[in-house]
Amino acid sequence: MKKIIVDGLFITVDDQETIVKGCLVINNNQIEFIGSEPPEPLEIYDEVINGNNKLYMPGLVNTHGHTAMSLLRGYGDDLALKVWLEEKMWPIEAKFTANDVKWGSALSIVEMLKGGTTSFVDMYDQMETVAALVEQSGMRGCLTRGVIGLCSTEIQDQKLQMAKQFAKDWHGKADGRITAMIAPHAPYTCPPDYIEKLVQAAHDLDLPIHTHMSESEQEVQQNVNDYGMRPTFHLEKLGVFNRPTLLAHAVHLNDEELAVLKAYDVRISHNPGSNLKLASGVARVPDMLKMGIKVSLGTDGPASNNNLDMFEEMRLAALIHKGVSGDPLAVPAKEALRMGTYMGAQSIWLEDVGQLKAGMKADIIAIDIDQPHLLPRTDFVSHVVYSASANDVVDVIIDGKWIVRGRACLTMDEEKVKREAELCFEKLTQ
Amino acid sequence: MKKIIVDGLFITVDDQETIVKGCLVINNNQIEFIGSEPPEPLEIYDEVINGNNKLYMPGLVNTHGHTAMSLLRGYGDDLALKVWLEEKMWPIEAKFTANDVKWGSALSIVEMLKGGTTSFVDMYDQMETVAALVEQSGMRGCLTRGVIGLCSTEIQDQKLQMAKQFAKDWHGKADGRITAMIAPHAPYTCPPDYIEKLVQAAHDLDLPIHTHMSESEQEVQQNVNDYGMRPTFHLEKLGVFNRPTLLAHAVHLNDEELAVLKAYDVRISHNPGSNLKLASGVARVPDMLKMGIKVSLGTDGPASNNNLDMFEEMRLAALIHKGVSGDPLAVPAKEALRMGTYMGAQSIWLEDVGQLKAGMKADIIAIDIDQPHLLPRTDFVSHVVYSASANDVVDVIIDGKWIVRGRACLTMDEEKVKREAELCFEKLTQ
Repeated sequence: MKKIIVDGLFITVDDQETIVKGCLVINNNQIEFIGSEPPEPLEIYDEVINGNNKLYMPGLVNTHGHTAMSLLRGYGDDLALKVWLEEKMWPIEAKFTANDVKWGSALSIVEMLKGGTTSFVDMYDQMETVAALVEQSGMRGCLTRGVIGLCSTEIQDQKLQMAKQFAKDWHGKADGRITAMIAPHAPYTCPPDYIEKLVQAAHDLDLPIHTHMSESEQEVQQNVNDYGMRPTFHLEKLGVFNRPTLLAHAVHLNDEELAVLKAYDVRISHNPGSNLKLASGVARVPDMLKMGIKVSLGTDGPASNNNLDMFEEMRLAALIHKGVSGDPLAVPAKEALRMGTYMGAQSIWLEDVGQLKAGMKADIIAIDIDQPHLLPRTDFVSHVVYSASANDVVDVIIDGKWIVRGRACLTMDEEKVKREAELCFEKLTQ
Repeated sequence: MKKIIVDGLFITVDDQETIVKGCLVINNNQIEFIGSEPPEPLEIYDEVINGNNKLYMPGLVNTHGHTAMSLLRGYGDDLALKVWLEEKMWPIEAKFTANDVKWGSALSIVEMLKGGTTSFVDMYDQMETVAALVEQSGMRGCLTRGVIGLCSTEIQDQKLQMAKQFAKDWHGKADGRITAMIAPHAPYTCPPDYIEKLVQAAHDLDLPIHTHMSESEQEVQQNVNDYGMRPTFHLEKLGVFNRPTLLAHAVHLNDEELAVLKAYDVRISHNPGSNLKLASGVARVPDMLKMGIKVSLGTDGPASNNNLDMFEEMRLAALIHKGVSGDPLAVPAKEALRMGTYMGAQSIWLEDVGQLKAGMKADIIAIDIDQPHLLPRTDFVSHVVYSASANDVVDVIIDGKWIVRGRACLTMDEEKVKREAELCFEKLTQ
């Protein structure tokens, strides 16, 4: 099955930050060619796609979230992280059934797909349900059963087994679109010996680790009080960083911690929207980038964001670090775009995702650029980062397959998903 | 001409922050009624509008911008304010013809209308051209011929005359939708004696004053060096605040300056997107709000934002002050919504705009709420501020008239505007 997009504009997100005007050939699930002229006569292609007035770019990669929490969007805003978690989120989440996780995650998946996100990281319970949705939707998912260890050893062990079983069952499934990680929720929700068990599981299964770390100043202080050291050293000591690791948030870090994270090549999922909304602070992203630490972007859950628009995260990343540092060159648009695409893929160890070039997986999105807020045709990278939004996405191809076309999601029944999600929320709050 | 919206949800933005489920009656250009049941049988209305799945709210008010600069969107990003202005913007703006101002402003007006902005402030040259567009488009415009006084006394006087003539010709025109202000560009671009002349003109014409102030730290320092005092005291001394005044930016203020601005009831147009992008800093909005200073929101010009999405400005206002202050209660969603609507209208002295209640002007926008990122139906104010964007707006009524319906602008020829704007940019950069 060979498709060719003709008469398109392509932001490649390669090292040269090239804009290609011309054609892109998709052979099955891979990009085979990108260049100004079709490499073969158009009649040999199974499908010829008119790219006029469309700006193509790699699909967005959302490296941290909790998709089922879309059911709690707007349910408890303008609160501190601890209050928000302990008094609003956790009590209602404790009531979540598999059905709630299913429709909450489905709502998020439809939102992400229609908004140009082609790969996402999910950390939550009942991850089998999410995996089935990823399989159905055609999306790429790096999934992990999040584990909170504030419970008896017996329950801890049960959770560990479930996390391992999920990874065994699903890692590499759905034509390789699903991968798995092992996820202790956070240093403050998992005792040290339990984290060590989870690290061992990651070794046994040869999987990366994903965890929240240093999201709030308070949590860093608590770590110092409880364990005599800041979270980075604590996790280093527990052997976490001996596995490939993706840290969510990483807002409060000193220079020594940054050096440790760089030394272990730990990946950071920067969640600017969520960090601002929960007043957690502003991560040291310009410092991280200068040191060569791999920083990607995540929305976090839809209850603390409150949408899953990765264009907005790119824009926030490009804006807040300028405003806060006073340096107008901090996180330029092209860097924000890399964070939202290629660095996202790198952060979840997808080596052939996140760029439009021959040999990469065909995860491609198209933006309608013939709109007032995206004219004139000056700097397309600037337009994507500083002006576009999820709603500008018209087409989404993942792994070479049509997933969204003309703004309609082809793989999910959007109407059913919306009604079921509403029903779930009504039942939960009855 | 009487219209009724039935089966709708209405965010009133009144003091009770009420959400009304039911009906709204528009009689000519005014809201006549809002409540759960139609006040009269439906057959008496000239038009019955189905509000199902729509969230209605007051139109957004953008209190600072330079609409013609849409032609320069993406033309020079990631630069410091001074470099960006002096090396990128001003040289190309010097080439702007009336035709450029016309199509650049038209592009912005179409973008704003489709995105739910019903009133805007514009500061630029050739304001007659913009006024004609405001008249045609059905929008509300508070327009001002911006004046830079770094020139001979003769040219200064010419500019002053043009600013006065514009105000005389257009203030109160287009059924009262157009109002005017007198606008010295900034303390650093207008000598003191020239500012005094502009203040006198504002007295003579009984008009407010609009100016940029304290956008960057550098400009504050320059004011101290040149005039021995910070800009607030400088403008106070020149009599600016004896007129009703709207200040754009006001980022760098000390406590004494805030007290002066409060004492004179000076209105502030907070431009978070532009201030972040140009690394100007973060205005002291939580302090201003605590003191009861009237703060509204502006996009600034599309070259430093880079779009005119007022939902994004509300969201930025609600997010950055939390993240920077560490206070998760700073600028809650309902406050950001007030800043984007009612306080915007108050900031440009439109006493009967910015709320959905009987007696107010019928400036009403509708959002399609049956979308994944706006479900479930938890907290509509939260959804508007934290999740919605300009693209979610489907209908816009201004002064009781349909302006946008089903996402199409009825008063402007969008295709022509887009093509002409592109042509203007091409000619400018040839």
